Amino acid sequence: MSLRPWDPYEQDCPSRRLLDRIGDRWTVLIVVALDPGPQRFSALAARVGGISQKMLTQTLRSLERDGFVTRTLYPEIPPRVEYELTTLGRSLLGPLRALEEWAVENMSEVVVHQGEYQATH
Amino acid sequence: MSLRPWDPYEQDCPSRRLLDRIGDRWTVLIVVALDPGPQRFSALAARVGGISQKMLTQTLRSLERDGFVTRTLYPEIPPRVEYELTTLGRSLLGPLRALEEWAVENMSEVVVHQGEYQATH
Repeated sequence: MSLRPWDPYEQDCPSRRLLDRIGDRWTVLIVVALDPGPQRFSALAARVGGISQKMLTQTLRSLERDGFVTRTLYPEIPPRVEYELTTLGRSLLGPLRALEEWAVENMSEVVVHQGEYQATH
Repeated sequence: MSLRPWDPYEQDCPSRRLLDRIGDRWTVLIVVALDPGPQRFSALAARVGGISQKMLTQTLRSLERDGFVTRTLYPEIPPRVEYELTTLGRSLLGPLRALEEWAVENMSEVVVHQGEYQATH
């Protein structure tokens, strides 16, 4: 690992790809949805409207690979799988919730600006 | 406009697309780069390593349409164009800087987790 600090302004710095992953809409919605505690795949699928099974699987795998989420298999019949935020994943909650809340709080103002822009361009 | 609150967990809510735009890597890097004050296109292109002219143009137009950035043309020879954050755009600085700083601060830990994941999957 380089001693040079990570810098997403540099084209080839892996922190830019990490920024992509944490800013991704599905990451934001899934991480925030996991805040209350461990969840099953089906509960997450129901919570995040319109997410495909494939996209949920891919996003959970990416979150697991980055160390944000653990996947626990309970060998029951039928087997139960639960996803849970790690300590690292929980440290993402603040920034991601801030992003989500900003979108909800400012959406109406953005709509007004979009109307103005359309009227003048 | 509906009186129902915006909710990015709903598939068709426009706040989900807004979340996409504000979480986009280029939005994060450009908005944070505009924090010190108005910037010319060429200065932004130099600051954000590897961004194409087309992508910078598209992202700035999207930021302008959403009301985050103003574009000012100074009719000099040659004409000068400057981009500047609006009040709404400045209100995004907190969440976006938090996201960028999280990526930089936690990149090394993420690399460790990725190595562990690869070794066990």
